[in-house]
Amino acid sequence: MAEPTLLVLNADPPPRLGRLTGKVRVEYADEESLAARLPEADVLLVWDFASDAVRLAWPGEGPRPRWVHTPSAGVDRLLCPELAASDTVVTNARGIFEQPIAEYVAALVLAMAKDLPGTLDLQRRHEWRHREGLGVAGSRGVVVGAGPIGRAVAGTLRALGVATAIVGRQARPGIHGERDLDPLLARADWVVCAAPLTRATVGMFDARRFGLMQPSARFVNVGRGPLVVEADLVDALNKRWIAGAALDVFESEPLAPDSAVWDVPGLIVSPHMSGDTVGWRDRLGEQFVEMYELWAAGEPLPNVVDKKRGYVPMHDLSPD
Amino acid sequence: MAEPTLLVLNADPPPRLGRLTGKVRVEYADEESLAARLPEADVLLVWDFASDAVRLAWPGEGPRPRWVHTPSAGVDRLLCPELAASDTVVTNARGIFEQPIAEYVAALVLAMAKDLPGTLDLQRRHEWRHREGLGVAGSRGVVVGAGPIGRAVAGTLRALGVATAIVGRQARPGIHGERDLDPLLARADWVVCAAPLTRATVGMFDARRFGLMQPSARFVNVGRGPLVVEADLVDALNKRWIAGAALDVFESEPLAPDSAVWDVPGLIVSPHMSGDTVGWRDRLGEQFVEMYELWAAGEPLPNVVDKKRGYVPMHDLSPD
Repeated sequence: MAEPTLLVLNADPPPRLGRLTGKVRVEYADEESLAARLPEADVLLVWDFASDAVRLAWPGEGPRPRWVHTPSAGVDRLLCPELAASDTVVTNARGIFEQPIAEYVAALVLAMAKDLPGTLDLQRRHEWRHREGLGVAGSRGVVVGAGPIGRAVAGTLRALGVATAIVGRQARPGIHGERDLDPLLARADWVVCAAPLTRATVGMFDARRFGLMQPSARFVNVGRGPLVVEADLVDALNKRWIAGAALDVFESEPLAPDSAVWDVPGLIVSPHMSGDTVGWRDRLGEQFVEMYELWAAGEPLPNVVDKKRGYVPMHDLSPD
Repeated sequence: MAEPTLLVLNADPPPRLGRLTGKVRVEYADEESLAARLPEADVLLVWDFASDAVRLAWPGEGPRPRWVHTPSAGVDRLLCPELAASDTVVTNARGIFEQPIAEYVAALVLAMAKDLPGTLDLQRRHEWRHREGLGVAGSRGVVVGAGPIGRAVAGTLRALGVATAIVGRQARPGIHGERDLDPLLARADWVVCAAPLTRATVGMFDARRFGLMQPSARFVNVGRGPLVVEADLVDALNKRWIAGAALDVFESEPLAPDSAVWDVPGLIVSPHMSGDTVGWRDRLGEQFVEMYELWAAGEPLPNVVDKKRGYVPMHDLSPD
């Protein structure tokens, strides 16, 4: 049997494929060459998971890779109707981002509770001004998104003493269904969005939902930008409907230098970095190597995305 | 029996004494009048615990209060040799500050791990620059100070997955003794100072100890300013001996507007607020009311300070 061909999209810096050397023919594509290279690939590694190129190139002519792996949690950039309808298996990077994102959310929640942004502003002005923080233990949180990331976030908030509910698509033990979302939002101190971006979730945080929240509530989005109607969040902050927010993801990334979002009072803006801790690219490469070895041996792949739903369904996940 | 006289130092805003109304004669003193008022007081409530006035006024003429309560954890501002040698009971506010300070330290650790100060700087400049955070779970911490605050800090860091050692004056189960301090500092990612300020601890964080730490280490002081030789810390940061630090307490407070400490790279400066969460003054008042009722009934007081050591000794603390 000939070596399979692995096509890697936007390999800059390239993944370290370690043990695969000599066992697979590695080819590289950029956004322009992807469409022409797809027919020759057995496997596509979407190394640059922020690119829309796969969604755009996939519907073209010729054979298609049998397996597409994205080294990200979300697959929203990737999926097009033709890929969803195909036999191609899509896998994601479950296991890499959960703990970093949970810590990042905890960092934001604690920073907002203790007004660390205010402290850093005052420090820059050499101004000593005592303020009172909020107690985090005993406060209430809601995490929207019941996948591995949402559950890791909830676990870390609970470790800090935050009474935390998780809301998913369907109610099941330990997870609230969508019908509980609005009443939970109405009494939460912390609302964290860690949902997958799908047709069902796009724009779910809008003026109506920000209007349900308490004036003291703070909102965090570590999912995908379009889960939030950005203009509605900006409005809610400007009108003091809620006390603060932190966005790590945006409708359009990178956020343009002239975007008004940078300067909204009470909003922390970070550049889509919540899941990325030192060594993350190496861990993503190692994960792919292990998955490739399973695939080459004809073993079932883990982390298979339900292409209709747009995420890895719970029943395919081991409990944790 | 005549009503006892309760003298309150610097009652602005005054404590809410609730149930004590009508049961005690409340008198007020400021720093200037304290010396003249001390002889008439049965109980002294050092409501302004940041003042040096008690230490200065205590050695004067006449009778002295039988009980002095400070609504703070540390008693370093209060104790003078004459008070230490007297029969007067000194109590502190154990139970109020532990959880807030533990959360504050967690906020600082996570903020440094995820470079939140850098994120806020970049946000101000409308600059999208992805960076990699540090993983907190699996890192190593050392908390110096084995009292209730140090133990609460360690508990919260452990809840975040930080392998955390506690160092106290004497080794005992779960607590390292002083001889372990230097080797523990040499392998810590996070060093947190939550020790009482005593003759034994003043200046304990000096050039030698910063020199022992890893270049990647970060230092947090939530104890008292003079535990740290500030000039040595500034030097250690400027020379990149350590990667960062956060000070909530200083050799001189408030930090002067022209202090060079405000502008040290990698240093977060906050205005002695780590323990102060919304409602803290009310909780301190309630705690004093409960203690006063015990005192008036002739019951033993909790939170009695060992005036020789300068803190509430462990054997007087209930385990938690």
